[in-house]
Amino acid sequence: MSDSFLKQLECGHCGATASIDRLIGTCPECGGPLLARYDLDQARGDRIPEPGRGLWRWAGLLPVLPEGRFELGAGGTPLLPSSIGEWLGIGPTWIKDEAANPTASFKARGMAVAIGRAKALGATSLVAPSAGNAACAAAAYAAASGLPLTVFMPKDVPESFQVEARAYAARVELVDGLIDECGKRAQAMAERDGSFNLATFREPGRVEGKKTMGFEIAEQMGWRLPEVIIYPTGGGTGIVALWKAFDELEALGLIGSERPRLVMVQAETCAPLVRAFEAGEAKAEPWQDGSTVADGMRVPKSFGDRLVLDALRKSQGRAVTVSDAQMIEYARIMAARSGLFPCPEGAACLAAQVQLAEEGWIGSGERVVLFNTGTALKYLHLWPNATHPG
Amino acid sequence: MSDSFLKQLECGHCGATASIDRLIGTCPECGGPLLARYDLDQARGDRIPEPGRGLWRWAGLLPVLPEGRFELGAGGTPLLPSSIGEWLGIGPTWIKDEAANPTASFKARGMAVAIGRAKALGATSLVAPSAGNAACAAAAYAAASGLPLTVFMPKDVPESFQVEARAYAARVELVDGLIDECGKRAQAMAERDGSFNLATFREPGRVEGKKTMGFEIAEQMGWRLPEVIIYPTGGGTGIVALWKAFDELEALGLIGSERPRLVMVQAETCAPLVRAFEAGEAKAEPWQDGSTVADGMRVPKSFGDRLVLDALRKSQGRAVTVSDAQMIEYARIMAARSGLFPCPEGAACLAAQVQLAEEGWIGSGERVVLFNTGTALKYLHLWPNATHPG
Ligand SMILES: [Zn+2]
Ligand SMILES: [Zn+2]
Repeated sequence: MSDSFLKQLECGHCGATASIDRLIGTCPECGGPLLARYDLDQARGDRIPEPGRGLWRWAGLLPVLPEGRFELGAGGTPLLPSSIGEWLGIGPTWIKDEAANPTASFKARGMAVAIGRAKALGATSLVAPSAGNAACAAAAYAAASGLPLTVFMPKDVPESFQVEARAYAARVELVDGLIDECGKRAQAMAERDGSFNLATFREPGRVEGKKTMGFEIAEQMGWRLPEVIIYPTGGGTGIVALWKAFDELEALGLIGSERPRLVMVQAETCAPLVRAFEAGEAKAEPWQDGSTVADGMRVPKSFGDRLVLDALRKSQGRAVTVSDAQMIEYARIMAARSGLFPCPEGAACLAAQVQLAEEGWIGSGERVVLFNTGTALKYLHLWPNATHPG
Repeated sequence: MSDSFLKQLECGHCGATASIDRLIGTCPECGGPLLARYDLDQARGDRIPEPGRGLWRWAGLLPVLPEGRFELGAGGTPLLPSSIGEWLGIGPTWIKDEAANPTASFKARGMAVAIGRAKALGATSLVAPSAGNAACAAAAYAAASGLPLTVFMPKDVPESFQVEARAYAARVELVDGLIDECGKRAQAMAERDGSFNLATFREPGRVEGKKTMGFEIAEQMGWRLPEVIIYPTGGGTGIVALWKAFDELEALGLIGSERPRLVMVQAETCAPLVRAFEAGEAKAEPWQDGSTVADGMRVPKSFGDRLVLDALRKSQGRAVTVSDAQMIEYARIMAARSGLFPCPEGAACLAAQVQLAEEGWIGSGERVVLFNTGTALKYLHLWPNATHPG
């Protein structure tokens, strides 16, 4: 495996820079989210991606020393050409099936990088707030790394997430509130006992791990990016990560200046970022009493709101909402018609595609990539004939 | 994608041959299991495997016409170097994590090939008996192919398998009995209405699909096969398939004549093939009242018993049993220590490895590959703190 071309960390808000040898989470100047910056000129001469399988093929553009590259099989998920777009009359559609990751969700990518970085830089214990899948992914990589982990989850999160996270020996604390409340508890623990906080945008690794989704799409489409990418959005790391991925690929000479339009999807009952986007705001106000069956989108406030909204606007993208009923309906269509078993967040992307195609915003010949961010197996309670309440 | 080098079908019992252009299931002479035979001399000049991802890279050695190669992302699963062997003091261990397949189990491979072949050769409806995961895999590929499917499962199969199979729009029939009884119902339906029967060893595709597990292990280990492969065994397709894979790779010149010793693992409460192996029998008698928490091993009778026992003996292998309690114990160790979330069948392999290492049959420097055949997410009822009975 190659060295990383990581050069420095740079604040996404104030631009301050920080050294890469110390385990820091947020900007030492303003507390904003740190982004990893690489020596891309030098990386250009290197073989990126390396041959093989999975996310560490891109190690040159990840902020993880070799000793932190734990291998559970993250990344290298299939990009499935789907007949569903044709069947619905909405044009050529590919589905990036992130259920093929360890812990059966896209969260494995971010946690592989965040925990690998933390371990290699000397962390001795970890803490994370989570709406569901992030807890499982963090717990799996914590187990692989040998670091103890505490996760804070909303107390009404489906049992599947709790059982899985506990199986990896994570300490699971259930919180009376949503992920913002869990985030406060995690932050307090980090300040109290020095546990490294893995919360979204509170450390630079998770964006970097998710970036590999963008790298893989580019490679899997023969370095010809699609016209539209539709992404289900909780905290919004993925939006920032995809945009960053394409900029880095261009700097490496692997793609040109063309970019997809990014579409952010949130639940209509918890849509702080969509509301801010539509109102032309640079930041998003917290959403009150957010609620949706899609646990990954039950995020009333994003710490990275400015970065997310900025990336979306630069891409000339859109922000749309879908209802829980639509997610359930389109999940059933995807399963019965295509043989995928999508989580509600994945189904939300298809619902959004239908909406934007009907509106004419997506043209009939445009190539669209949807994300199925995880498996329906953790959401069996949403399916017919399931007797378990979730 | 290349053409298939498929030449003919050959009976594993009587040696009779059959043409490849018709959709037949079993030997027209004796009713035995048919095996696919290829023009390996010609294949040797071709690029096998092709570049890319997944099981269709091996299409030259699969009995599926291009129009039957449905893509849900089967194959290309990670082979994870695991520290668990070291931790347990039993030597170098790799885990082939088949949970990364569509439907989160190894069954996707066999069904991709069986259903792809059936569809391309004109099948108009499908039927399958299943102890659990095979139903889900068949249902997913049936959905992808557009063919209707009926599955027969034991009525006490965990709800997860039923809900998932139904999500893909399969008709699920619950049967008062085990998979052998389900097999009779499937066979009767096939005879009655012409549905193509996907039962293990009743058609040649499933062995071929599972063969790609052997291909991938060889490639992932740099064409240096491990000394031991441990495989959880219900019907035993995988054992036959691995052995066949290595013979074909040798004919292609990709490996030499070295072979791993194959270890078959069954549940001590349902171990017809282990009993027959130990007794030196060529065939296995049905196991009465078989029962185990590992649904994939709740198979009291294998139609391919002769082929399975023969492959195991040729490899100088072993057949061992493990208890349900051991499976549950080793699943917990694997999750907490390695970050995998294994099904009981996967945990059974680790339990068997410990047993054979303690016995000295596996030497301390020997490289061992275990199979985790699927995800624990369909077996949440076996984990602590799960309130759902399964
Ligand atoms: Zn700053
Ligand atoms: Zn025959």
